Amino acid sequence: MSRRKKQRDIFAESLALHEKFHGKIEVHSKVPLTTRRDLSLAYTPGVGAVCKAIDKDKNLAYRYTLKANTIAIVTDGSRVLSLGNIGGYAAIPVMEGKALLFKKLADIDAFPLCFESYHTEFADEIKNIAPVFGGIALEDIAAPKCFELEEALQGIGIPVMHDDQHGTAIVVLAALLNACRVTKKRFEELNIVVSGAGAAGFAITRMLAGIGYDPDLFPQVNDIIVCDSQGIIHRHREGLYGNKYKFIMAEETNKAGRTGTLADAMQGADVCIGVSVPDIITQKMVRSMNRDPVIFALANPSPEIHPHDALLAGAAVVGTGRGEFPNQINYALAFPGIFRGALDVCATRISDEMKLAAAHAIADYVRRPRKDRILPRVLNRDVVKAVARAVREAAIKSGCARTI
Amino acid sequence: MSRRKKQRDIFAESLALHEKFHGKIEVHSKVPLTTRRDLSLAYTPGVGAVCKAIDKDKNLAYRYTLKANTIAIVTDGSRVLSLGNIGGYAAIPVMEGKALLFKKLADIDAFPLCFESYHTEFADEIKNIAPVFGGIALEDIAAPKCFELEEALQGIGIPVMHDDQHGTAIVVLAALLNACRVTKKRFEELNIVVSGAGAAGFAITRMLAGIGYDPDLFPQVNDIIVCDSQGIIHRHREGLYGNKYKFIMAEETNKAGRTGTLADAMQGADVCIGVSVPDIITQKMVRSMNRDPVIFALANPSPEIHPHDALLAGAAVVGTGRGEFPNQINYALAFPGIFRGALDVCATRISDEMKLAAAHAIADYVRRPRKDRILPRVLNRDVVKAVARAVREAAIKSGCARTI
Repeated sequence: MSRRKKQRDIFAESLALHEKFHGKIEVHSKVPLTTRRDLSLAYTPGVGAVCKAIDKDKNLAYRYTLKANTIAIVTDGSRVLSLGNIGGYAAIPVMEGKALLFKKLADIDAFPLCFESYHTEFADEIKNIAPVFGGIALEDIAAPKCFELEEALQGIGIPVMHDDQHGTAIVVLAALLNACRVTKKRFEELNIVVSGAGAAGFAITRMLAGIGYDPDLFPQVNDIIVCDSQGIIHRHREGLYGNKYKFIMAEETNKAGRTGTLADAMQGADVCIGVSVPDIITQKMVRSMNRDPVIFALANPSPEIHPHDALLAGAAVVGTGRGEFPNQINYALAFPGIFRGALDVCATRISDEMKLAAAHAIADYVRRPRKDRILPRVLNRDVVKAVARAVREAAIKSGCARTI
Repeated sequence: MSRRKKQRDIFAESLALHEKFHGKIEVHSKVPLTTRRDLSLAYTPGVGAVCKAIDKDKNLAYRYTLKANTIAIVTDGSRVLSLGNIGGYAAIPVMEGKALLFKKLADIDAFPLCFESYHTEFADEIKNIAPVFGGIALEDIAAPKCFELEEALQGIGIPVMHDDQHGTAIVVLAALLNACRVTKKRFEELNIVVSGAGAAGFAITRMLAGIGYDPDLFPQVNDIIVCDSQGIIHRHREGLYGNKYKFIMAEETNKAGRTGTLADAMQGADVCIGVSVPDIITQKMVRSMNRDPVIFALANPSPEIHPHDALLAGAAVVGTGRGEFPNQINYALAFPGIFRGALDVCATRISDEMKLAAAHAIADYVRRPRKDRILPRVLNRDVVKAVARAVREAAIKSGCARTI
């Protein structure tokens, strides 16, 4: 069966499935509700005592309500899969799917909140719905507003994380730590090219270059060159002032002030991380890299270079976003365990320590990294547990755990 | 065991229950999720086809997503039970309890959204989260902001109903229709006193006096006198201009321009509906009413007059808000069936016709009304079904059903 035919089948079957069940998630009762007595405990009059307790100390919402195990999946649908800005309605099926992953992998009750429009008071709106949620996962929100929004939501008292940014960055860091083991390269000496300056590209660059991160905490690579559709981002490129985030990247990366194309950037580099568009890395570019080059080609649905081609061109380690190749670099390795760990300690936020702990837990889960196994398999509940444990401990150490 | 001891037991047991389960609701998967194939249908890549379909026609969210069966329970916690303004956090347990009722009685997935604060843009905020919801139940929001909010949210394309207002008004209307049958009074000749000018009092008055309702549609009583804590509301009372809603009541009720106290109002009245505070109706007041007086004493947790006392003083029919007495007048008779019926036709709003149909369905469910049985029992799923059926038909007739 052709690939195209297979995909048509999956699309038709998926539409039928969604129609049959009218979506994928529902609300269930956790408590018995058979007798009148049951109802008098779960609802009036018994519930009055619970309300009064929380009225005295609102932290008790973690003890007595769904807040303990519930997060909101928040989107405005401005950058969904490879579909772009399809808005809040068309984003619902993806957010429900994400909720299924949270439930299945981490026993988290995630409820999708798809906003119809993004506007300047969006952060205030989200803050205002915080009472019932123990955390907020921002999803599929386009750059640069995802940066501004996440920044504005730090300090609201519950963890807020944009998975597309930090989930991806954490898994890339884990993959890179193990790729270094395999290639016997020193992390601190790596020269890295990042292709793509969107949400994921910015977050990866920030984390690997330590921009905004505690330098004593995070290992930093030697240098990073970021490329967007116009080529290498450098200090003297025109038009950077219009985009605060590209401006930051220009200031903080590319120490040597290199200019030119992605191909120019890749010459002599140790690692190329693609979070951009399919098929823009050639075998020639791979051959121009330093010895034992590492290629993470994460574009969806097709990678920047087919892993087979990259290996033939001499790549030592290749990772992609897809499950049918070795080394799937997918944020699903990170976000379920991070939120599980955060909820377990009623965390006030996601600290850098928690992110780093997650990356190490993912990397260390693979006892003996090999060129075709630098990461654990996605959808493995044991990985989620390991990440959650590490995040929990890091939350306590970094003062982000709440005592109830 | 004393009543107080019993209540203490219920409170302690309720706290233990809430702590054991960390609240009462959770998010479940409706679709199989065992194999990789399952995931490729529920999530990527299959879900892409569903997103694309909704992107072309956002009404298809009703066919393919949780929107078909999901409502938001929205509150700012400004008037919760008899606890008053306890805020969004302390309101969570009540909203979760409400969600349980929606699920158990009407198979509706209701998710609580407890807002931390109410402000002038609140209606815009709620409107902005409409994509995932097929309806919005406003709960426990204090008057007069509940009036303004509900008004501002009409026309957003999904049903929005403040249960405390319309749920109560609909059930009171149903009770009154059957009380008329029992006492052989004509509805159109009734003189009614409403004690309490909050959300429920205003909604009941509006519905029975036809204020803002189509006069050809709704039966109207002869006259209503509304009393608040200062006594009878009349046109010449001072200070009415500060409260638009009391001003409306003064304009539209009390044709004879009577003044004085609740006791004065009740002289010669056919019906007294209390939605105020416990124990403010005396037997003497009941004796001063017209023949076969009807008393609905709905204050919580204790009625305006004990039903036993009202009957001894000559009341022909007595209803209260409590389940241990006959004739429980509880909005739980209305809201599950109304939202069920509305969701069944992907309703665009709740029309007057739908409210009236609900009231008649509740009243007609009781084949032979008796003085101690003017309403069906609360928590009866068959009543919910009857109400849903009537609401569905009324929605179609009044042009509020959506074709998907």
